[in-house]
Amino acid sequence: MHTRADCQHADLRDPLAPLRQQFELPDGIIYLDGNSLGVLPKAAAARAASVVTQEWGSGLIRSWNTAGWFDLPARLGDKLARLIGADPGQVVITDTTSLNLFKALAAALRIQQHAAPERRVIVSERDNFPTDLYMIQGMIDLLQQGYEMRLIDEQLPLEQALDDSVAVVALSHVNYRTGHLHDMAAVTARAHSHGALTIWDLAHSAGAVPVDLTGSNADFAVGCTYKYLNAGPGAPAFIWVAPRHTDQFWQPLSGWWSHQRPFDMAVDYEPAAGIRRYLCGTQPIVSLSLVECGLDIALAADMNEVRKKSLALGDLFIQLVESRCAQHPLTLVTPRDPARRGSHVSFRHPHGYQVMQALIERGVIGDYREPEVLRFGLTPLYLGYADVWDAVQVLKEVLDGETWKQERYSRRGAVT
Amino acid sequence: MHTRADCQHADLRDPLAPLRQQFELPDGIIYLDGNSLGVLPKAAAARAASVVTQEWGSGLIRSWNTAGWFDLPARLGDKLARLIGADPGQVVITDTTSLNLFKALAAALRIQQHAAPERRVIVSERDNFPTDLYMIQGMIDLLQQGYEMRLIDEQLPLEQALDDSVAVVALSHVNYRTGHLHDMAAVTARAHSHGALTIWDLAHSAGAVPVDLTGSNADFAVGCTYKYLNAGPGAPAFIWVAPRHTDQFWQPLSGWWSHQRPFDMAVDYEPAAGIRRYLCGTQPIVSLSLVECGLDIALAADMNEVRKKSLALGDLFIQLVESRCAQHPLTLVTPRDPARRGSHVSFRHPHGYQVMQALIERGVIGDYREPEVLRFGLTPLYLGYADVWDAVQVLKEVLDGETWKQERYSRRGAVT
Repeated sequence: MHTRADCQHADLRDPLAPLRQQFELPDGIIYLDGNSLGVLPKAAAARAASVVTQEWGSGLIRSWNTAGWFDLPARLGDKLARLIGADPGQVVITDTTSLNLFKALAAALRIQQHAAPERRVIVSERDNFPTDLYMIQGMIDLLQQGYEMRLIDEQLPLEQALDDSVAVVALSHVNYRTGHLHDMAAVTARAHSHGALTIWDLAHSAGAVPVDLTGSNADFAVGCTYKYLNAGPGAPAFIWVAPRHTDQFWQPLSGWWSHQRPFDMAVDYEPAAGIRRYLCGTQPIVSLSLVECGLDIALAADMNEVRKKSLALGDLFIQLVESRCAQHPLTLVTPRDPARRGSHVSFRHPHGYQVMQALIERGVIGDYREPEVLRFGLTPLYLGYADVWDAVQVLKEVLDGETWKQERYSRRGAVT
Repeated sequence: MHTRADCQHADLRDPLAPLRQQFELPDGIIYLDGNSLGVLPKAAAARAASVVTQEWGSGLIRSWNTAGWFDLPARLGDKLARLIGADPGQVVITDTTSLNLFKALAAALRIQQHAAPERRVIVSERDNFPTDLYMIQGMIDLLQQGYEMRLIDEQLPLEQALDDSVAVVALSHVNYRTGHLHDMAAVTARAHSHGALTIWDLAHSAGAVPVDLTGSNADFAVGCTYKYLNAGPGAPAFIWVAPRHTDQFWQPLSGWWSHQRPFDMAVDYEPAAGIRRYLCGTQPIVSLSLVECGLDIALAADMNEVRKKSLALGDLFIQLVESRCAQHPLTLVTPRDPARRGSHVSFRHPHGYQVMQALIERGVIGDYREPEVLRFGLTPLYLGYADVWDAVQVLKEVLDGETWKQERYSRRGAVT
C-alpha cells in the first residue's frame, strides 16, 4: 500500500470495519492510544445511566441480588475467558492488575514452598512494566524470607536466568514499551522444565492478540480491561488461575468476597471453591458494569481477523514511517517480525516527548514512554488503514516542519 | 414524640431537612439501609454521564491530566479528611476497605518490628465485620512469622487482652451489627499505654458520627465511602495514616501509583512521600468520580447536627418499637446509651430473616444479619422523624398480622 487510495481500498475490504460503528470516536482525532486507554463503546453511556439511575437509585440495596451485582466479577470473567483461552469459572474481573499479580505471586510462592522450598528466586524482565516489578519488590520486602528478584535483559537471557533456584517467572506477554511478544507456550514450557511456575501479565495482549492460556499450559495470568478491551478508565482487572492450582492455596488478600459463605459472617476464614477465592472486597459496581460493553464488542470479532488486521496495520505503519520520514532520526524499537510483535509499534526519536506533544496537538494521539519512545497503538476494532496513512502524514509534517521545536511542547504534565 | 403529628412537627424544625432534596429517594420506600448502601445523590447521574461521555469518550487518554483523574484519590481524600478530623494530604480514596486494612496492618507490624520485635499479637474483636478478621488471618498466614490473632469479646474485654505481646489493635469504630460505638480516644490511649498501635475501621462511622482521628491520637484508619457517604455501590474506600507514621515504611502493595515518579518507569521502587504511598494501581475512575457527589452533601451538613439528629432518630425508633410492638419477641441489641451508639439500631427477633423479607416487600428496607438480627440504618441526611414513625407502623402490622410466616419469606437470596 503506497497511497492513501490503496489504504481506502483496504478499508473497504476489511471484515472488521463495521465494528467501528459501535464506538464513539471524537471528530478530528486519530486515536493511536487504545493500548493505554480504549475508546468509549456507544452502549456504555446508556449502561452507565441505567446502573446509576435504575440499579443504584431505584433498586438500592436490592440490586445486589436483582441486578446481579454480586455475580458480576464471575459472570463477566466467563465472557473474558473466551478471549484468552480459558474456560468458564476460571476468571474473575476484580481489583487492579497490580493487586491480582500480588495474589498470583503469593499463591505461586506458596505452592513452591510445598513443592520445592529451596527455590527463592522470582524472575522477571528489566523492561517489564514497572508496577509488576514494584509488586514483586513489595512481596519480597514483606515476606523477609530470603526471596530475590532476577531480571532478564540483553545481558541475561531467559535461558541463562533459569536454574533450580527459580520459583516463579513473571513476565508480560507483550512488552508495554517495545511491543515485543513472548511465545507463551515456549517460555512456559522452558520455565516448567526448570521447575518454575509462570505468571503472565496480559495487559497489552488480552483482546489484541490471540491468547491460549490453556493450550500454553500456563499457571497464572492477570491483565487489564481498559486497554484493548475498552472497559473504561481504570476499570477492574482480571485474574486467571489454572484449575490444577486454584484450590491449592488461598491467596492472602482474603477479604469477605472470597469466603465460601460470605453472609454467614463467620469468624474464621474459609476460602470459596474455585476462582472466587481470588476476590477480596466489594467491587466498584459502576465501573465494573461498563466492562461488559467493551467485552461484547470484542466477542463479536473473530480474534484471528483481529490479529491479521493488527499485523497489517503495524506493517503499514512501519513501512510508511520508514519510507516517508526516512530523513528523520527515527529508530524502530518494535520487533519487525510479526510473530514477535503485539498490537502497538514504537519508534525512538531523540526528541520523542516534544514530537508526541506536537502530534497530539494536531489530533494524532499516541503516547510517550521513557526513554525517547513514541508509542502508537494500532487497534483493529476501530482503526482503519487510511487512519494510519493520515497519522503518518501528520507525523511527516511535524517532523519536516520542525514544529515540535516550539517551546510549549517541552512542558511536562503529570501524565505523559 | 408519641404520635405521627409529633414526628411531622419535628421534621418541620429539622435544620438538616433541606438536604433531603439533594437525593433521589424512590417513591413508596422508607430506606433504612443507608448504613449498607447509601442513596443516590441527584448530582451523580449528570456526573456519571459527564465522566463517561465527555471525559472518557471525548477526552480519552488526555483526561488523565485535563480532567484531573490522576489526582482524584488525593483531591477527594482532602475533602473526606474534613469529616474525620484529618488534615489535607493525609487521606487517599482508593481500592477497598479490606485492601486498605492490609496496607495499614503491614505498615503497623513493620513499625513494631523495629520498635518492639517481640510483639506478635494482633488484637481485634470477635464481633468485628468478618472481612477485617479475614484480612488479619490472611496476613498472619502469609508472613509465617509467628503472629497470632487475639479476639476480644464478653469473656475477654480489651483491658485483659492488652499486654506487652500486642503489636496492633484493629477495631471497628462502630460495630456493623450492634451499632456499638467505641470511645476512640480512650481505646487508643489504652492501647498506646500498652505499647500497641491502633487501626480504626470507620466503615460504619465516617459521615455518621463525629470522628476526630487527630484529636484521638489514632495511628491508622480505613473506611468505606458507599455507606453514610453515599458514594455509590462498591465505590473506592479510604485510608488515613498519622503523619508521624506515614513516611516510616512503604506498604507492600507497592504498585506504580505509589511511586515517587511513576512515569520515570524506573526499575526500582521508590515510595512517594506522604499518603500517596498508600496507593497501588490505576483506580476505577467512573466509580471514583461519583464519590465527590456524596461527599459534597455531607460537607454541607454540620456534623454536630448530624449526630444530634442521628441519636434522636435512634431514640425515637427504639421508643416506638418497644412501646408499639411490646408484645412481640424483639430484643434491642444496640446500646441504649447514646454515647455508645452509632447511627443504626438493631433488634433480634427469632424469625428475623422472614420479618425483614416481609418488611422489604412492604417498602421498609432494612437488612438482616446473622444471627436473627434486624438492622435499621437511621441516616440523618435524608431520613425524617415521620419516616421512622411510618416504618415502625409497618413493622407493627407485619408482626401483628404474622404476615412474615408466609412461605416465600423463608427463601434466601445470595445477599441478604
